[in-house]
Amino acid sequence: MRLKIDVDLDYHFPNAAEVLLTLEVAQLPDQRLIEDRLTVNGSGPLHPITGEDGIGRRTWAATEGSFRARYAATVDVERTPASLASLAADALDALPPEVVPYLWPSRYCEADKFEAFVERQFVELKGGPLIAAMSAWIRAEMAYVAGSSDSETTAADAFVSRQGVCRDYAHLLVSFARAASIPARLVSAYAWRLDPPDFHALVEVWLDGGWHLVDPTGLAPIEGIARIAVGRDATDIAFMTIFGMAEMRSQSVVVTRLDE
Amino acid sequence: MRLKIDVDLDYHFPNAAEVLLTLEVAQLPDQRLIEDRLTVNGSGPLHPITGEDGIGRRTWAATEGSFRARYAATVDVERTPASLASLAADALDALPPEVVPYLWPSRYCEADKFEAFVERQFVELKGGPLIAAMSAWIRAEMAYVAGSSDSETTAADAFVSRQGVCRDYAHLLVSFARAASIPARLVSAYAWRLDPPDFHALVEVWLDGGWHLVDPTGLAPIEGIARIAVGRDATDIAFMTIFGMAEMRSQSVVVTRLDE
Amino acid sequence: MRLKIDVDLDYHFPNAAEVLLTLEVAQLPDQRLIEDRLTVNGSGPLHPITGEDGIGRRTWAATEGSFRARYAATVDVERTPASLASLAADALDALPPEVVPYLWPSRYCEADKFEAFVERQFVELKGGPLIAAMSAWIRAEMAYVAGSSDSETTAADAFVSRQGVCRDYAHLLVSFARAASIPARLVSAYAWRLDPPDFHALVEVWLDGGWHLVDPTGLAPIEGIARIAVGRDATDIAFMTIFGMAEMRSQSVVVTRLDE
Amino acid sequence: MRLKIDVDLDYHFPNAAEVLLTLEVAQLPDQRLIEDRLTVNGSGPLHPITGEDGIGRRTWAATEGSFRARYAATVDVERTPASLASLAADALDALPPEVVPYLWPSRYCEADKFEAFVERQFVELKGGPLIAAMSAWIRAEMAYVAGSSDSETTAADAFVSRQGVCRDYAHLLVSFARAASIPARLVSAYAWRLDPPDFHALVEVWLDGGWHLVDPTGLAPIEGIARIAVGRDATDIAFMTIFGMAEMRSQSVVVTRLDE
Repeated sequence: MRLKIDVDLDYHFPNAAEVLLTLEVAQLPDQRLIEDRLTVNGSGPLHPITGEDGIGRRTWAATEGSFRARYAATVDVERTPASLASLAADALDALPPEVVPYLWPSRYCEADKFEAFVERQFVELKGGPLIAAMSAWIRAEMAYVAGSSDSETTAADAFVSRQGVCRDYAHLLVSFARAASIPARLVSAYAWRLDPPDFHALVEVWLDGGWHLVDPTGLAPIEGIARIAVGRDATDIAFMTIFGMAEMRSQSVVVTRLDE
Repeated sequence: MRLKIDVDLDYHFPNAAEVLLTLEVAQLPDQRLIEDRLTVNGSGPLHPITGEDGIGRRTWAATEGSFRARYAATVDVERTPASLASLAADALDALPPEVVPYLWPSRYCEADKFEAFVERQFVELKGGPLIAAMSAWIRAEMAYVAGSSDSETTAADAFVSRQGVCRDYAHLLVSFARAASIPARLVSAYAWRLDPPDFHALVEVWLDGGWHLVDPTGLAPIEGIARIAVGRDATDIAFMTIFGMAEMRSQSVVVTRLDE
Repeated sequence: MRLKIDVDLDYHFPNAAEVLLTLEVAQLPDQRLIEDRLTVNGSGPLHPITGEDGIGRRTWAATEGSFRARYAATVDVERTPASLASLAADALDALPPEVVPYLWPSRYCEADKFEAFVERQFVELKGGPLIAAMSAWIRAEMAYVAGSSDSETTAADAFVSRQGVCRDYAHLLVSFARAASIPARLVSAYAWRLDPPDFHALVEVWLDGGWHLVDPTGLAPIEGIARIAVGRDATDIAFMTIFGMAEMRSQSVVVTRLDE
Repeated sequence: MRLKIDVDLDYHFPNAAEVLLTLEVAQLPDQRLIEDRLTVNGSGPLHPITGEDGIGRRTWAATEGSFRARYAATVDVERTPASLASLAADALDALPPEVVPYLWPSRYCEADKFEAFVERQFVELKGGPLIAAMSAWIRAEMAYVAGSSDSETTAADAFVSRQGVCRDYAHLLVSFARAASIPARLVSAYAWRLDPPDFHALVEVWLDGGWHLVDPTGLAPIEGIARIAVGRDATDIAFMTIFGMAEMRSQSVVVTRLDE
């Protein structure tokens, strides 16, 4: 599936500030970046750096006053959804060293607190079928309510309130997976057919020697996901990290299929 | 049922301190206090005051060094468990003014956070049958694990961890009830047949114009409960509030049935 | 000082809901209510009840759709600011029973967590001078930033972020006072010269046998404060507690001095 | 300085469990590991992996029943304490990509919440002098109280309670540094002259193109620190991460200077 992605961010910075943009589609085996371009007005020279785990790219910009970032990309996504049923969990001591930290609890994913719940709720399930059951539970028990959470909301908060957005669904699945000793990380992405269009957050779990993409919201097909960045939780994958003060004027994300 | 209650608290206070003891059985229509006696060694004169909502009695003691409090009481409990099925919720505007604050969230009972869960989980139930379903849910889904919570643990924490002790069970039921606009308060009590013997915490809900005792732990029969104090949550009903520093040496609670 | 108070609340309730309004000026020795009138459109009959601690009045209204509440009052305030320097703390065992719960920590006032800070920061101070030093510290160290806190923000949160609004300043002073074993409660009020005009929150501390009004924000003169309600923290003194869903369309509070 | 390190961990695992040990001294330019040996009884074969950021080594062990881990190492530490006064902060866009995540808030280091405090308290300071002032502030304002915190305690909690142990001091300095946009990470270490002997936690800050070791507790000389692991906060550097249940029977850490 060939996707065209267009992002337009319009912000105002009352004082000099630095911005780390994490907008760019990652070049990965299942998503081939054909071309992309990030342009930023109202900023000095841009400094690109490699993203978390060597995946994707971030870009530093120093700015003040009006700030307009536009990102356009064309990407070929060739991915079939993971067939979770057939995937087994790896032995812990067989995990690559760089995967091990994805077993830890993190700020928004208090995996340690969910151990008793996970053990009781998903009894006798393991590996891929366990992840599938966790994802189904989240989709069934949570209500997707725009505006119901904010940047402070953790997985435990969402579990209590039973409400959230894609970020909260993803934090819950990551927490449940880690509580069952399955490495899991958060993924930011562009998602074809996501409605309303916006940045999307979903999950990768480590099974059978590799990362597998899972979307507990079910709001967009996995075949139309173009990943941007990965990390321990929302902290790592923010599309814009601001060192200073900013006000948003408008922002838009458009994902179009080109090959239909 | 005639109960004999014996409490023995042995503490040490390194510095001068004040202690508020909330140990004494309340004189109430369904529990007639025959006689009781609180003796405190290692303290100046005792100052009794009335408890929360005019129920029960607290006693101030000023102390330093060794502190030994003994409480002995004989009480006739005549109570039949509330038949929740037949009780209806009162209209909010018909609640007595002093009952209204028991609708609020409180420190350990974040009722506001449970609204979506309660609405979804206990759909179409009201009044007494709703409370009965909530209590049954808590008993089924929580594991009673001694030492699994501490004085910081809130209802939301226990809901996530699915573990707790009587205090946590009671906080959960109070939170659920308030989330459904039913006034609820925490109750401290002596409980016949509680094993191991200890102070007990349970719940009163306001239905059909009165308070009704419910024990989500099911660990002791309602007929053998002798209430001490009531309040918004664990803060209000602590058996000992210490203004200063103390170390516990030993404490024991014994409840014996006399009329068998 | 004679004050005229005008409140206008314009809300919309998508579904049937119940509302508890706590808008009415309390009749108290230092503030004599000359006349007042609460009118509510879009509601059935109103049910007034007495407020917390027997102070003030709350009013229940059942509503659906458009909801407009208007409150107009004339009140004579005759109060001289408490001279904190001359006030001593009462012995704990001399506190009236109904004052004792104002020693407890509460949801937004985690007094227990501030004990070490308070002991160290305000060493050797007691009673009124201690309260005055606490209030001065808060005014000096906190930045009043509109929108910097929300309904979840506790005193500990505000202490860390060093930002807040009147509610947070008041929660901090209440927490500090209780951490030093001085009873303290939150007060909602109308405040002459508060800019921008809004509901105000401040503090009463129990010293020398009575409650004394203190405003850690210093944003409005104590002589122009007309109290509405008191309580353990923000939970108890909300001007509007909604049992259901609501959206605010507009609200205004105007306080005018009549005798100038 | 030549140090001899001896660790002895005695645990019991009621069920089969996996353990990740992070005990081994890292081979680094300023600490040359002469020899070391990790022996584990009551476990299958050991699986060593590389630690966080490629620093140090962790070891997986699968166990059940009695578990005894002994670690002995000899290390030459040649380090002069960082002269913070002369170190400047790097421009954000000059940070190596792998250093960037050490700017983020993390579970125990809520750097975002401290921004206003840091800006106000340490006004006009930058780089190394800023870190020195932060470290001095923590040492002056915090009380080191064994047992005052637990595995849930965050930097914000410690900031409020003004009490903690080495872990909390380190979390505070990491949080303050990140709040000022200086990368900072937690370090676990063996510390000569730490009294009582135990695992130690301290901080590395990124200044002038490199990591510099700072100990806000001041409890042990920097010259006698042998680092084990680094990470975002306590989560990453635990000396023992248990996937299952365990009870500790005893543990000891001894650090001896050999070249005196």
